[in-house]
Amino acid sequence: MAKLTKREEDYSAWYNDLVQRSELADYAPVRGCMVIRPHGYAIWEKIQRALDTMFKETGHQNAYFPLFIPESFMKKEAEHVEGFAPHCAVVTHGGGKLLEEPLYVRPTSETVIWAMYAKWIHSYRDLPLLINQWANVVRWEMRPRLFLRTIEFLWQEGHTAHATDREAEEETLKILGIYRKFAEDYMAMPVIPGLKTEAEKFAGAVRTYCIEAMTQDKRAIQAGTSHNLGQNFAKAFNVQYQDEGGALQYVWASSWGVSTRLIGALVMAHSDDQGLILPPRLAPIHVVIVPIFKTEDEKCRVMECGDKIRLALPKDLVVKFDDREQYKPGWKFNEWELKGVPLRIEIGPRDVAQDQVVFARRDNGEKRPVAVCEVAKEVPAALDAIQKGMFEKALAFRKANTHEVKTYAEFKERLESEGGFFVADWAGTTEDENRVQEETKATIRCIPLEGSEPQGPCFLTGKPANVRCIFAKAY
Amino acid sequence: MAKLTKREEDYSAWYNDLVQRSELADYAPVRGCMVIRPHGYAIWEKIQRALDTMFKETGHQNAYFPLFIPESFMKKEAEHVEGFAPHCAVVTHGGGKLLEEPLYVRPTSETVIWAMYAKWIHSYRDLPLLINQWANVVRWEMRPRLFLRTIEFLWQEGHTAHATDREAEEETLKILGIYRKFAEDYMAMPVIPGLKTEAEKFAGAVRTYCIEAMTQDKRAIQAGTSHNLGQNFAKAFNVQYQDEGGALQYVWASSWGVSTRLIGALVMAHSDDQGLILPPRLAPIHVVIVPIFKTEDEKCRVMECGDKIRLALPKDLVVKFDDREQYKPGWKFNEWELKGVPLRIEIGPRDVAQDQVVFARRDNGEKRPVAVCEVAKEVPAALDAIQKGMFEKALAFRKANTHEVKTYAEFKERLESEGGFFVADWAGTTEDENRVQEETKATIRCIPLEGSEPQGPCFLTGKPANVRCIFAKAY
Repeated sequence: MAKLTKREEDYSAWYNDLVQRSELADYAPVRGCMVIRPHGYAIWEKIQRALDTMFKETGHQNAYFPLFIPESFMKKEAEHVEGFAPHCAVVTHGGGKLLEEPLYVRPTSETVIWAMYAKWIHSYRDLPLLINQWANVVRWEMRPRLFLRTIEFLWQEGHTAHATDREAEEETLKILGIYRKFAEDYMAMPVIPGLKTEAEKFAGAVRTYCIEAMTQDKRAIQAGTSHNLGQNFAKAFNVQYQDEGGALQYVWASSWGVSTRLIGALVMAHSDDQGLILPPRLAPIHVVIVPIFKTEDEKCRVMECGDKIRLALPKDLVVKFDDREQYKPGWKFNEWELKGVPLRIEIGPRDVAQDQVVFARRDNGEKRPVAVCEVAKEVPAALDAIQKGMFEKALAFRKANTHEVKTYAEFKERLESEGGFFVADWAGTTEDENRVQEETKATIRCIPLEGSEPQGPCFLTGKPANVRCIFAKAY
Repeated sequence: MAKLTKREEDYSAWYNDLVQRSELADYAPVRGCMVIRPHGYAIWEKIQRALDTMFKETGHQNAYFPLFIPESFMKKEAEHVEGFAPHCAVVTHGGGKLLEEPLYVRPTSETVIWAMYAKWIHSYRDLPLLINQWANVVRWEMRPRLFLRTIEFLWQEGHTAHATDREAEEETLKILGIYRKFAEDYMAMPVIPGLKTEAEKFAGAVRTYCIEAMTQDKRAIQAGTSHNLGQNFAKAFNVQYQDEGGALQYVWASSWGVSTRLIGALVMAHSDDQGLILPPRLAPIHVVIVPIFKTEDEKCRVMECGDKIRLALPKDLVVKFDDREQYKPGWKFNEWELKGVPLRIEIGPRDVAQDQVVFARRDNGEKRPVAVCEVAKEVPAALDAIQKGMFEKALAFRKANTHEVKTYAEFKERLESEGGFFVADWAGTTEDENRVQEETKATIRCIPLEGSEPQGPCFLTGKPANVRCIFAKAY
């Protein structure tokens, strides 16, 4: 096998190379679209299963709303149409005829969903309405990248309706908590939960919260957003409910989503020059067993030991016994390292003689012998250790690459020389924020939920700061 | 609650009324599109889970291919484009600009998938390739109906590639078997597996197999199709593999799908004038417990018994304890009958005094007392009996409404006076088939896999018959 591009040489080429070579995804015939291949889709299924369970445990139900949105609906919320319409795909013909009204392929579903909520919500008894959907959406992209920015992507979008502002805010933050828990516990990816600035918030939201992770090239990657929509969509679609006293009130709303972009973030957070490094809780294959032998006699003993181990492993683990005879062990090691299998079990004739096998961890390369009788117990423990180790390594990396800066000059210098997250006190306006972006390509990633109390004057303007934010270049 | 339209009065209005009132689905703002509401989507999730498990057990993997297909791709397989292009939605603008080439919103994905298979398949070692996807598709419909014919629908589509014609045919029939098993074991809906005639086969297939069910108004409803595509798409997209001898061969293919139409078939097969009747294996809620009381003292005793029962029931069952105080028991009975909950447990003060509760079956209205200590054991048994009873009732109905006919005159007369499935010997051509359809609105639903040996001359032409088929009016 040809080697992957190295991260040091060209991080961006490494990413593209890895995503395709590991068979996570491929370019589709239409520029900017992608095919998610079985290995990538198996990760998406695990992401779906974990999140869907958490959504249902917190009272959400799934539904499905249509792909097509009439142009007139998109125009009902002024900020929303301004933000999304320029990035839409538009259907003008159907069934061989020119349509009377063009249909937008959903870039997000607030408008069509709130048109339905107007039919369904009448009384306080109908609230809260907590609905999620798993769907595809389309946003035209000029500079597409596999998983990170594709014209079509898969996601979940939650859309909730509440009787009060406070409930909508609680929901928005509850979901942000779920996203954080998922990123950290399943993806082994530490994230900073925070609030977006006005310049970065969702078109149509009152407030947008996000979780931000760090990639290995020290950039930020937004991994999920949760929006408090206030009454904007309720007013645009006239969704009112009768309260307990009989008065009509506009409904309060939230919406929130994560997408197949998470798979891109997962790759960027953990993988290396040999291939994918997948956290055990999202890995399609947990363990690969590779038999090593030369003679027929060795083969017989090694295979017998492999079979024994395979049968002894817990049934909830996906185990691949790679007994293909046309490939050498080293070739198999490379293939499964490329594919990101967390744990490899090597079994050679000398191991069998000593009643042991060798565990090789994908995340840190550690190899150690394990007695055959201990394997069934040691495999789950090793997977737990890998899951934990990956999180801690990523957390240490983020800490080592997060810097406080006091002045704009220092910020610019260190952003170029070191990169990373920059914590800075801030009193700026949207104009100031735009200036920073133009001059440095960095943006305010978020005002973190914890630690946003300013400790000095604004690093840009010197004015009294009202907040601490995190600046970084972002994907 | 207002009553549903009765089936006897207007079967079609009953169906539309029921689907909306039971909150399975609603009309979307775009004509011909639908919203699948949480109650309907929960059924779809159960359908997905059951089928997905069966697909994976037979070696299939999921993937995701793009929504948009370049116009030029659609045109590569002549029959295929002729069949599908007139029913497509077409995107002409993206990102605010006119596109160089129009994009078709996928009506089915053979073309884009075979374009990818051309990149991925090189050697016999790459075969068989067994891929499925869960996705939305769009086909423009002039006479839309909720679930049965909507412009957008959800489905799964399998696309497999094989080294030989025989393997492709085996796969096509294996999937037909899975569809039959699913329809009968989960939907409690007997189906006839069979072969479509030339006139009814998939555009681009060599042979199309289907399963056909009977609705309560004695029409046929196609509930799944499995196509042997031969080498048609392999040749259109130049997909060849190197065989073990080193020679290049075109690949053989199958494709197969079922859609949210199954939910429409489910409603049509079982439900009644009170509402949905859902088979336990697909019901989102298995059991509803309704407490009945007048005084506070009665309430206390009844609620305590209800709690006890709820906690005693197996954890894999979804149980709703309807303790809402603003509704009377009769109102609750109506609501849960409308929603199709298979089993209701009524608990009144006299039941508690006798240490018993009352089981009420949704499918046949049977009510019987059950001792409290037997409930945990009796509930799963009752659900099994309902699942089985529903299948047997539907099977008896189909048998009672399936008729052999010897002459076209008899066929026409009975089709009008009785309706149902008509088994007839056949030697006709596609032209003859079209004539029957024009004159009677009935079509050949299939040539059944079992019992297609003719037993007399063709009922239309009197010529020596080569096959027995089933004729019926269809949805």
